[in-house]
Amino acid sequence: MAKDKKMVTAITSMDEDFAQWYTDICKKAELVEYTSVKGCMVIRPYGYAIWENIQSILDGMFKATGHENVCMPMFIPESLLQKEKDHVEGFAPEVAWVTHGGSEKLEDRLCVRPTSETLFCEHYSNIIHSYRDLPKLYNQWVSVVRWEKTTRPFLRSREFLWQEGHTIHATAEEAIEETEKMLNVYADFCENYLAMPVIKGKKTESDKFAGAVSTYAIEALMHDGKALQAGTSHYFGDGFAQAFGIEYTDKENKRVFPHQTSWGVTTRLIGAVIMTHGDDNGLVLPPAIAPVQVVIIPIAQHKEGVLDKANELKDRLAAAGIRVKLDDSENSPGWKFAEYEMKGVPVRVEIGPRDIEEGNCVIASRWNGEKVTVSLDELESAVAQKLTEARDGMFNKALENRENKTYSCSTMDEIIEALEKNGDGFVKAMWCGEEACEDEVKEKTGVGSRCIPLVQEKIAGVCVCCGKPAQHTVYWGKAY
Amino acid sequence: MAKDKKMVTAITSMDEDFAQWYTDICKKAELVEYTSVKGCMVIRPYGYAIWENIQSILDGMFKATGHENVCMPMFIPESLLQKEKDHVEGFAPEVAWVTHGGSEKLEDRLCVRPTSETLFCEHYSNIIHSYRDLPKLYNQWVSVVRWEKTTRPFLRSREFLWQEGHTIHATAEEAIEETEKMLNVYADFCENYLAMPVIKGKKTESDKFAGAVSTYAIEALMHDGKALQAGTSHYFGDGFAQAFGIEYTDKENKRVFPHQTSWGVTTRLIGAVIMTHGDDNGLVLPPAIAPVQVVIIPIAQHKEGVLDKANELKDRLAAAGIRVKLDDSENSPGWKFAEYEMKGVPVRVEIGPRDIEEGNCVIASRWNGEKVTVSLDELESAVAQKLTEARDGMFNKALENRENKTYSCSTMDEIIEALEKNGDGFVKAMWCGEEACEDEVKEKTGVGSRCIPLVQEKIAGVCVCCGKPAQHTVYWGKAY
Repeated sequence: MAKDKKMVTAITSMDEDFAQWYTDICKKAELVEYTSVKGCMVIRPYGYAIWENIQSILDGMFKATGHENVCMPMFIPESLLQKEKDHVEGFAPEVAWVTHGGSEKLEDRLCVRPTSETLFCEHYSNIIHSYRDLPKLYNQWVSVVRWEKTTRPFLRSREFLWQEGHTIHATAEEAIEETEKMLNVYADFCENYLAMPVIKGKKTESDKFAGAVSTYAIEALMHDGKALQAGTSHYFGDGFAQAFGIEYTDKENKRVFPHQTSWGVTTRLIGAVIMTHGDDNGLVLPPAIAPVQVVIIPIAQHKEGVLDKANELKDRLAAAGIRVKLDDSENSPGWKFAEYEMKGVPVRVEIGPRDIEEGNCVIASRWNGEKVTVSLDELESAVAQKLTEARDGMFNKALENRENKTYSCSTMDEIIEALEKNGDGFVKAMWCGEEACEDEVKEKTGVGSRCIPLVQEKIAGVCVCCGKPAQHTVYWGKAY
Repeated sequence: MAKDKKMVTAITSMDEDFAQWYTDICKKAELVEYTSVKGCMVIRPYGYAIWENIQSILDGMFKATGHENVCMPMFIPESLLQKEKDHVEGFAPEVAWVTHGGSEKLEDRLCVRPTSETLFCEHYSNIIHSYRDLPKLYNQWVSVVRWEKTTRPFLRSREFLWQEGHTIHATAEEAIEETEKMLNVYADFCENYLAMPVIKGKKTESDKFAGAVSTYAIEALMHDGKALQAGTSHYFGDGFAQAFGIEYTDKENKRVFPHQTSWGVTTRLIGAVIMTHGDDNGLVLPPAIAPVQVVIIPIAQHKEGVLDKANELKDRLAAAGIRVKLDDSENSPGWKFAEYEMKGVPVRVEIGPRDIEEGNCVIASRWNGEKVTVSLDELESAVAQKLTEARDGMFNKALENRENKTYSCSTMDEIIEALEKNGDGFVKAMWCGEEACEDEVKEKTGVGSRCIPLVQEKIAGVCVCCGKPAQHTVYWGKAY
């Protein structure tokens, strides 16, 4: 059993060093590997299979809400990027520039897309002429590049995978409705499939996307009390349409500007899953996105009948639509237990000679470590129940963590005290709406505004900073 | 009906100007749109949905043969690209170079991947240590960039979508087996799903992939008699492993070099489908990859009961697992007929008041224009039969075109004569194996070697060029 021990002790404890624990999981669970391209990573088969499951569920949700996939070029000419003033100011400092094609120097430099508003706008200006051409509800699954200084796997890398929805509508009302609808799709996905509770809110003016009228976000709280922006949805008004000359003829035969949105989630969601659910034994995956939902581990597999029975159970679970793997390798059961705990497989089924004799198997749940003995006759329903319980249990555990780490404060001193006493977390405090106060809170307490939650408690109050009448309750926190 | 006419005459006839006909289809069927990024295109929803279907089928075939998906960075440092001599010579002249990240000049330039052998090799050198780590059967779905001078939608663009398989094996035998296996997967896919016959063959030395020991390809003949390389599979031996220092410890505890392959198909397959099956009315899609397999067009839809019945038929076909669309827009039936012919929808179902009275509907097949009246009771089976017939009929029609345009020649004069008399096509002629003769054939007759077919006729003969004993029969042609 020396091997098992080595494996387990190879991860740093999350309480000791959360950042190192995170990096250890990314490596040990074989999610990513570093490359000689600074700030970029290889997403390995196990990590990519998680992303494929995320993609598949989200893509289904997008199509069910009427969206179509397209594919834009990865390059944006510098002249095109410059068309919308705020947008170029926000992104130009962090793009990668292509200056040469082969040995030829380009006249107009190309940036590798950091996001594709400009390309979609150019396309819309070509294909939208009349109200009959609206709306267009487009999405693409691609990678984008932002030249970050410090990077971490999934959380912040120079290249990352994402989807970017870009829609264009006849009216502002429709576009705002779309912005909110997609925020709700993201929240639904995070809560029901990733078992990760999120706060839906609006970003403050200073934290908006470059070029947006308003930016909405879902914010999650990680195990260590830091906040993570898990998805954003932007309403653009007709600013981009004006900058790119997108006009249509309405029913009254007038030329008017349409209204736009964009929204995106990234491979960062994998980082969120790691930091929301993981523990000192490794990854803990929500069943909906787990590449392997159930691993079958035979005990004393050299004994007659054990592997046959294990294969039979595998076939039964596969037939029930469960992603199941049988590990019949030469490694010890103990090694296998540790390995699949590291990989976060939601349910483990153990089957040995005595179990077979008694017509039972043992089912262990990764998220809470519980083991139960069930009759083989009830295998499918028992496993299905454990998978459902896992999602619910993981969600409630994460919600409890968030609630334990959410501090309602009404003065700056209370914020400082709460954070000192309890460690990082969400601070709930009221705000007057002035940027100066937002900056001062950050400067004096270390927490920045995360979002203005869409659901506001109906209480009057004063700004935690200046004491003037407050406009909103705000969630503040330290962010990834 | 003015609209219908306009639509139909808007395409150039294929006999008049095949290149213009191709471009017209790409635009009119709404597959692509040009952008201000020279040589790059937008793949529009209808074009992208075709690619999604291609991806989905191929991805299933790759996974069924044991492959796993990963994702490598899009950038390759110049120093990494230079590690394998032949490879860098082949690709460096046609890559896009990133020289700046934000405002900072990079020390080591990065190229945007033209293909990813070097990145996979670097990764393999990190993760492969022992024979237990082999094989690795990896694939990725990404886009790549090659700085082409002249571009055409799908056929040759500066950025294109593809999959690239990269595998690494303990022995040369295993790697060669993999190379051939994936060539067969491609051929199977093209013939059974795209209804496009292909020749499986080996490339000559002068036409090999940069860095390969041998390159295999599938070659298809387009409607105009030009050849199109539809997929390639390369065997690398241990050349890359030596260049990148990938070594493993074998069972005898010796350090040895593993053997590698790579293989890929691209969005070019969409171009192949257009040019294999299309006609003067537009696109003709094989049912397996058609975004809409059946379109239902109501006749006199304002009359009572017509739309209800059309919706009922739609629900029945959808329940039978068919991708079906009902067009109940205000456009005339004639306009709709032309529109879905342009878009290549394999089967059209027409339903009007008289049909309903008689308990029938009309089913029209896009590929041969045939119309049949069938009882509504037999709708599902009749439609399924028409879809099967479409694949088979399209395949046979394409095969017949290829056979009509394949000329067996034994002298240079015969080649010249055959091409002059019959137009472009495949020339089957024997070859001694000398590059000088290969060049001379091209220079004097205009056709280059496409491939040395894997299935060789057992006849002795002499080189069509020099008259010395021949080594192989070769397919020659003009290539896209």
